[in-house]
Amino acid sequence: MNIPKLSCPRIVIIGGGFGGLSLAQKLSKKDVQVVLIDKNNYHTFQPLLYQVSTGGLEPDSIAYPIRKVLKDYSNFYFRLADVQEILPEEKSILTTIGDLNYDYLVIATGSETNFFGNKEIEKNAMAMKSIPQSLNLRSLILENFEQALLTDEMHERDALMNFVIVGGGPTGVELAGALAEIKKGVLPKDYPDLDTRRAQINLVQSGDCILPGMSKKASEKAEEFLEKLGVEIWTNIRVTSYDGKVVTTKTDLTFNSATVVWAAGVMGATIKGIDAEELLVRGNRIRVNEFNQIPNYPDIFAIGDVACIENKDTPRGHPMMAQPAIQQGKNLGENLARLLDGKALKPFAYKDKGSMATIGRNKAVADTKNFKFQGVFAWFVWMFVHLFFLIGFRNRAIVFVNWVYNYIRFDREARLIIRPYNRDYSQFKD
Amino acid sequence: MNIPKLSCPRIVIIGGGFGGLSLAQKLSKKDVQVVLIDKNNYHTFQPLLYQVSTGGLEPDSIAYPIRKVLKDYSNFYFRLADVQEILPEEKSILTTIGDLNYDYLVIATGSETNFFGNKEIEKNAMAMKSIPQSLNLRSLILENFEQALLTDEMHERDALMNFVIVGGGPTGVELAGALAEIKKGVLPKDYPDLDTRRAQINLVQSGDCILPGMSKKASEKAEEFLEKLGVEIWTNIRVTSYDGKVVTTKTDLTFNSATVVWAAGVMGATIKGIDAEELLVRGNRIRVNEFNQIPNYPDIFAIGDVACIENKDTPRGHPMMAQPAIQQGKNLGENLARLLDGKALKPFAYKDKGSMATIGRNKAVADTKNFKFQGVFAWFVWMFVHLFFLIGFRNRAIVFVNWVYNYIRFDREARLIIRPYNRDYSQFKD
Repeated sequence: MNIPKLSCPRIVIIGGGFGGLSLAQKLSKKDVQVVLIDKNNYHTFQPLLYQVSTGGLEPDSIAYPIRKVLKDYSNFYFRLADVQEILPEEKSILTTIGDLNYDYLVIATGSETNFFGNKEIEKNAMAMKSIPQSLNLRSLILENFEQALLTDEMHERDALMNFVIVGGGPTGVELAGALAEIKKGVLPKDYPDLDTRRAQINLVQSGDCILPGMSKKASEKAEEFLEKLGVEIWTNIRVTSYDGKVVTTKTDLTFNSATVVWAAGVMGATIKGIDAEELLVRGNRIRVNEFNQIPNYPDIFAIGDVACIENKDTPRGHPMMAQPAIQQGKNLGENLARLLDGKALKPFAYKDKGSMATIGRNKAVADTKNFKFQGVFAWFVWMFVHLFFLIGFRNRAIVFVNWVYNYIRFDREARLIIRPYNRDYSQFKD
Repeated sequence: MNIPKLSCPRIVIIGGGFGGLSLAQKLSKKDVQVVLIDKNNYHTFQPLLYQVSTGGLEPDSIAYPIRKVLKDYSNFYFRLADVQEILPEEKSILTTIGDLNYDYLVIATGSETNFFGNKEIEKNAMAMKSIPQSLNLRSLILENFEQALLTDEMHERDALMNFVIVGGGPTGVELAGALAEIKKGVLPKDYPDLDTRRAQINLVQSGDCILPGMSKKASEKAEEFLEKLGVEIWTNIRVTSYDGKVVTTKTDLTFNSATVVWAAGVMGATIKGIDAEELLVRGNRIRVNEFNQIPNYPDIFAIGDVACIENKDTPRGHPMMAQPAIQQGKNLGENLARLLDGKALKPFAYKDKGSMATIGRNKAVADTKNFKFQGVFAWFVWMFVHLFFLIGFRNRAIVFVNWVYNYIRFDREARLIIRPYNRDYSQFKD
């Protein structure tokens, strides 16, 4: 890997998401060598992936080069690689570009889509956890409309314009809202020779309400907003399979659909080597103590989505969102400094900043500790918070321009099939 | 293809580039049915592709949805398809989504990279004529720097940081200048553990000067600007092959390079069916008369890069650039209306608006009919003209934000490897 051996301890961080980056920033002034490894050379701002999928934003505006985050820190090294295995006994990791020793290792690998072992759904449904996946979904949606134009067979045409989003959490709700807005504002103009009113957006939720992690008020209001936009909400319906054409459920209900998005669950993206049975808890997350330390491995830590701090306040761990990851990253940064100074560690205390979801223009819901609010004000807060947490001035400026434009023009202009999803990529070399 | 048969004549346009779109716009108020076919659902603003390759712009900001251009016109149809063959006898075309009859056919397919039959160069060098190609080049450049970090073998490391751009026309010059700016402004910060001063940018030109299509003054000044930026210019050197590692030339000179960009020539992108030997002239362009009509095919026309109007003023046809395409599209739009009214056609008269090339910040060269100027003013004119010709307010705003940011910060922030070039794409489905 060509990383020099320094006299100070080496901290290896796997993953440049919210957790990994906030940890790296905390360590920037400490006397340590930091090696950050990620399979992408960029940080992804996951909360806005659904806007990439629906043509509202370009992918480059929600991604940020990791090297640029680290450029002002000394003793920081970035390496573009996949980590294949951890060898705790040798205090080293194996990666696609060689192996590397560590003094301390931090697993900040985040989460991946959880298909709950259903191979057929995994094969045929779209996921939306990365930029390439979001671009694939964008292409598929547009390709299906182009395809719908070409057929006179009503049944086939309807299936091509029928969207099924499985999972009523924030991702599913935001995607359903964005699709409903496209149906209203973009499709009738783009496809005048197609009866786009027949396009359907179905949001299928296994539980009895959408946004189950939020307040009852938020959940009800989100449902109302979505229905106003024309989204069909199906609660208490569990999807059992999808063969690429028909979605089946535990009930008699089926959907003929060419576009199924699986937003029904995520699970920790663990790495071989420490995933001993006793460590993994619900959701494939690694059980850690209140210092984010993995039991029996005092020099290995896990933060963010992949980590689960089980205690009486959070029997199932913290929510798999940006805030716990950022806060755990910061706390661990301080704790690693304390560890090196021989001081006692400080347990992680989560400061719940609330949660929110946007449904469409002027429509969002927000829960904070003291206030729960919905509608226009929540929507403005949502935008402000997302702009604030985006990394980089350029990204903020470009997202802002896009949002202003989309708001004024009722439009989504990034509806380009840059790399077709259905077709063979190889032909696009030329 | 599911296009209704109307009582008015059907004009089929193949290609949504500068020529095809300007023709479509001219026809918007005529009593005709227009079908525009393109293999992409977007128009590409090719003059800025080099900025996508070098991380200065996101691809979405130089592409524009074709459907959006046509949305306000009645009787306009867009179809996403590859045209495979023209059957002039049957007045129809064969495409990947079926066949279609036409009353008038316009070939506006533009140009593609000309490797002059050299299969080895075609296989190993990068081209930059489309957005996917430009993104591939961006990824390759960044991947090679990541790779350079991992090797201690000096020779290999140098090859990974050694760029060879073949062709000293505007594309080659602009790309070389942009790479030189990245070398100065971005690489030392991004790769502190790499001696990026050893990175080399070579511009290889077979003729005795760069920008041969422009004035002597422009050519000399461009050369001076590039040398100031540290680009090595090699004139009178003809590249003979590239095996993926070594570039060979007609002289003893060779280059060890992992990144070779072929910008040495373009040729008309013709379609099977009318490419009879006698019609194709130099550069694989279709010989047309002064009305852009193809000899012996009174109902088939060709415009833009793929067409060659041979007369005494332009014995080799008009330059393969945006302006002749736009102007021919407009003229043909008027001529088709005249044809339908039984009036005499108007021969195409090219109004040369001049040409320009940008080398770097505050550095551009411009030739117009009456003035030739270089430096800061030319650079501002270049930016203004390019913003003006970009389609869409959003695109202009976003390109403008990027340029201001890049100018102030000496940065290029879109340096993201979104779809790795070297690796297998299939693994990025998940």
